[in-house]
Amino acid sequence: MDKIGILESIKDLAKLRTKDLYLNDFLLTWEKSMDELKAHYLVAEILRGMRENNLSTRLFDSGLGISLFRDASTRTRFSYASACNLLGIEEQVLDESKSQISHGETVRETANMISFMADVIGIRDDMYIGRGNTYMREVSKSVLEGYREGVLEQRPTLVNLQCDIDHPTQSMSDALHLINYFGGIENLKGKKIAMTWAYSPSYGKPLSVPQGIVGLLTRFGAELHLAHPKGYEIMPEVEEVARRNAAETGGKFTKSNSMSDAFEGAHVVYPKSWAPFAAMEKRTKLYDKGDDAGIKALEKELLAQNANHKDWECTEEMMAKTHNGEALYMHCLPADITGVSCKEGEVAASVFERYRIPQYKEASYKPYIIAAMIFLSKVANPAEKLQQMVERGNPRMF
Amino acid sequence: MDKIGILESIKDLAKLRTKDLYLNDFLLTWEKSMDELKAHYLVAEILRGMRENNLSTRLFDSGLGISLFRDASTRTRFSYASACNLLGIEEQVLDESKSQISHGETVRETANMISFMADVIGIRDDMYIGRGNTYMREVSKSVLEGYREGVLEQRPTLVNLQCDIDHPTQSMSDALHLINYFGGIENLKGKKIAMTWAYSPSYGKPLSVPQGIVGLLTRFGAELHLAHPKGYEIMPEVEEVARRNAAETGGKFTKSNSMSDAFEGAHVVYPKSWAPFAAMEKRTKLYDKGDDAGIKALEKELLAQNANHKDWECTEEMMAKTHNGEALYMHCLPADITGVSCKEGEVAASVFERYRIPQYKEASYKPYIIAAMIFLSKVANPAEKLQQMVERGNPRMF
Amino acid sequence: MDKIGILESIKDLAKLRTKDLYLNDFLLTWEKSMDELKAHYLVAEILRGMRENNLSTRLFDSGLGISLFRDASTRTRFSYASACNLLGIEEQVLDESKSQISHGETVRETANMISFMADVIGIRDDMYIGRGNTYMREVSKSVLEGYREGVLEQRPTLVNLQCDIDHPTQSMSDALHLINYFGGIENLKGKKIAMTWAYSPSYGKPLSVPQGIVGLLTRFGAELHLAHPKGYEIMPEVEEVARRNAAETGGKFTKSNSMSDAFEGAHVVYPKSWAPFAAMEKRTKLYDKGDDAGIKALEKELLAQNANHKDWECTEEMMAKTHNGEALYMHCLPADITGVSCKEGEVAASVFERYRIPQYKEASYKPYIIAAMIFLSKVANPAEKLQQMVERGNPRMF
Repeated sequence: MDKIGILESIKDLAKLRTKDLYLNDFLLTWEKSMDELKAHYLVAEILRGMRENNLSTRLFDSGLGISLFRDASTRTRFSYASACNLLGIEEQVLDESKSQISHGETVRETANMISFMADVIGIRDDMYIGRGNTYMREVSKSVLEGYREGVLEQRPTLVNLQCDIDHPTQSMSDALHLINYFGGIENLKGKKIAMTWAYSPSYGKPLSVPQGIVGLLTRFGAELHLAHPKGYEIMPEVEEVARRNAAETGGKFTKSNSMSDAFEGAHVVYPKSWAPFAAMEKRTKLYDKGDDAGIKALEKELLAQNANHKDWECTEEMMAKTHNGEALYMHCLPADITGVSCKEGEVAASVFERYRIPQYKEASYKPYIIAAMIFLSKVANPAEKLQQMVERGNPRMF
Repeated sequence: MDKIGILESIKDLAKLRTKDLYLNDFLLTWEKSMDELKAHYLVAEILRGMRENNLSTRLFDSGLGISLFRDASTRTRFSYASACNLLGIEEQVLDESKSQISHGETVRETANMISFMADVIGIRDDMYIGRGNTYMREVSKSVLEGYREGVLEQRPTLVNLQCDIDHPTQSMSDALHLINYFGGIENLKGKKIAMTWAYSPSYGKPLSVPQGIVGLLTRFGAELHLAHPKGYEIMPEVEEVARRNAAETGGKFTKSNSMSDAFEGAHVVYPKSWAPFAAMEKRTKLYDKGDDAGIKALEKELLAQNANHKDWECTEEMMAKTHNGEALYMHCLPADITGVSCKEGEVAASVFERYRIPQYKEASYKPYIIAAMIFLSKVANPAEKLQQMVERGNPRMF
Repeated sequence: MDKIGILESIKDLAKLRTKDLYLNDFLLTWEKSMDELKAHYLVAEILRGMRENNLSTRLFDSGLGISLFRDASTRTRFSYASACNLLGIEEQVLDESKSQISHGETVRETANMISFMADVIGIRDDMYIGRGNTYMREVSKSVLEGYREGVLEQRPTLVNLQCDIDHPTQSMSDALHLINYFGGIENLKGKKIAMTWAYSPSYGKPLSVPQGIVGLLTRFGAELHLAHPKGYEIMPEVEEVARRNAAETGGKFTKSNSMSDAFEGAHVVYPKSWAPFAAMEKRTKLYDKGDDAGIKALEKELLAQNANHKDWECTEEMMAKTHNGEALYMHCLPADITGVSCKEGEVAASVFERYRIPQYKEASYKPYIIAAMIFLSKVANPAEKLQQMVERGNPRMF
């Protein structure tokens, strides 16, 4: 994007209603209005454009971005750190093993203790159904209280870096990838997007990716087809969100237990393993009881169950069924690639390799989407502020 | 604090003698003069005021703040990182497990090797009596030599983030909390402050908090009452400091073995568990001999000894004995709260909850106190520099 | 260096041909021309001079410097972080244990996923012969592809923080130390430099230090004498590089199996333990087979072999053989010091202590050398840019 493109995008941004984003969290995409979603795509592209044009995107001259990862992460971790850096705040990792949280601190207390200079808090907590999103809301409530009571000079806003319900930094990046791929958000209308389960030799992958996709990509007039073997249902509440979305935008939310049905005529395919919702609920209960043997038994059972569905693989044959045989293949990465990272997996090596660079591009939106989430929660008038930043003209590299 | 308040505080600061702080360490509060203590409170409030008024507090455009935590920490860790960030330097953690220190490096060597760009080094080393403070002085001496010999371009100054003797970032924050609570440092005169032992089901909590409180809060004309069960004595050298402080400021340093006596008429109570000094000395000797069994036996013995004093709890009944039943409850956090973080602990849940927000405020001074320690050790004329920073008028958030 | 010295050095820099450094990696010193090496020494000194004169060296206002340490490090870790900070980029550590690399990511994928905002990637990977340098080239190729395909906005350049072949940040710092010690690069001509093996009670120290020294210090017209017990050969390819270097610069590359021969008349001695090349190759093969027992057996065998050569120690007697008995003693640190860090080691305590401060100075060049590597890979016209930075006159400390 050149400088003219940046200025035009800023004008487009000025037309959107974004004021409810100000001093607010980003926890679930379906809590955001269409204007708000669009604002994120525009701000992400503007920030990227500014960086490409060597314009400083520093909103802050100091400040911290706290991160708490309760599960391993490469992409999201680096994307979050990149987003903070892009805006001028320094990432500060809360490593629970090095803190005194085990000494009996409450969530309320810890949340305030880490936030004295925090402009934003990013949390990944996706392991247990019913937990992650709840925890984020508790943190958010706690720091809001701390801000109101004068403990904190500023209100740290929350960014959901993946919870048990949604993975908004992923789904928003995926959506921006599609918007660019199809040449505009309006071009998603009528497209068929297949979000399908796929076989993986590993166990217990989070539901938040398929749920995030289903909850977001039903909002642009597309047909979102969700397919999985029987028993691999996602959370019913999220299906309900998808149904409502489709009804409101003239799109469709369809379902099947057939990968072929899903791929048939699809413009986009997103084949990915996940664990059954019911099993994950069961795991949370076992975890609460400290029943390690039960968890191991459940794992064994689920792996056996997975193995019944090895035919759910994104092969060349499957790809041939898609629209012109040329659907865009998507994945949140890392993928289980047959013959590369595992014996039998989610996707054939030739398919993965053909779409490797598009997938890297898909991932490349994430830092900018996270930066947009932070920016829009910190700035009352985002279009005006971006205009001023462009006019300021500070170079990123001297 | 508004901008007028900031400018007035800068004028007050200009009247204080602070030149011995310049290029010096902060290791023990009783090594600092009254002017120097006051300068820290003023600088902390000025920096906080600047941040509230969106004025950049960046003293540095680059530089590192090294941290070394030999014990778990949440508050102090984040406070130190926040203080560094506030002044424009980047925290760099020395993780001894990832370094080559185990390969036979000496303190002298490591201290220089990590300090090429270090403006400040913060160390927590509180586990063994006779060790932490000594280690900090060795580091300080080493980098001073490195600076004088041309190895280092600047002299990194040291901040004691808790040692075996003192916990100055805690006690200084606590003092600033009291100054604000009573509406001025002069209003501490004649107040009764009860630093008392309290029961905890855990073992070996550092002595540096009570010692830090006793060594500092005896300097403002207050009555500091130290109470603990027999056998829970603190270091005699620190008691001597307290006695001398009280004599010099017209205050009092009193002692008893009764929590009730301590609470009676107190304006401030600080009930907190700690380990007996003699036992901690014994532990250091066992540690030197590598006597793990001896350390375990000592731990068992101390826990049993603790259990004899479960009545040392800050209950509502205890609080009722204080001045108007309304003493300010303080704690360095995290506290052992009866029925919340443990079965029986230091404080009743209702007392803790009533003073929860004041405690968070107490903690909120720590980043600014640390920043003041760094600032005053780096700037020859702090009032002039702060005045220039206010006039510069750079915004923290663009 | 004062400001006049800085400006003169910038003029000298302008005369050198550095354009092939631009957007390029620093992997092996012998891939760089003499002009390019000299440019690094000049830029390192200019940056150091600017910092001494409180001039900001920030080239960037945001950006990340990724680091990946697959082996413990103190000096290089802090030097890299310091170099990044000096130029205005924030270090971001890739901790493979906290990432999803174990989930089957390829090098190609990870390299791109961590690089969205990366200006530079620094890697230490020195444990297995045939691996580290190869890995770095794969990372470099991957991010170059990502940049060309529009995944990355900028091309992250690579800095070798020690591999199986070379340790350029060490050898370049060592060379700069010698240049300053002898008062100019031209004064290295005709000097005798002894790179010798020395006894250590530890096992498997990397070959990259002696190889780096042999591969670089043969380029300035000196006599580089490599000495080690039979069986402790370095990689033959690097010896070949040394021979070619010496031939091209009028220097000498000599070899012996005698520490005395090496020390005889030497102006500089660099006694240091390393593992035999052939044994390290064997270890790589055992590692590939997952043969832990084989690795342990090899370790035992090598330690026994080492013990046959305890007389390879840098004693006062040895030092007396050097030029005027006053050769400069060098070490990459940490050293195995007899009676200090081990019973019997590489160097006598009195020798080490006499050269302690010179060694710290030797190490102090590393952050600036790394910063020069980054600077020269990021800036098309380095002399012009440095001139502008001096003229800009921003203070490092306000």
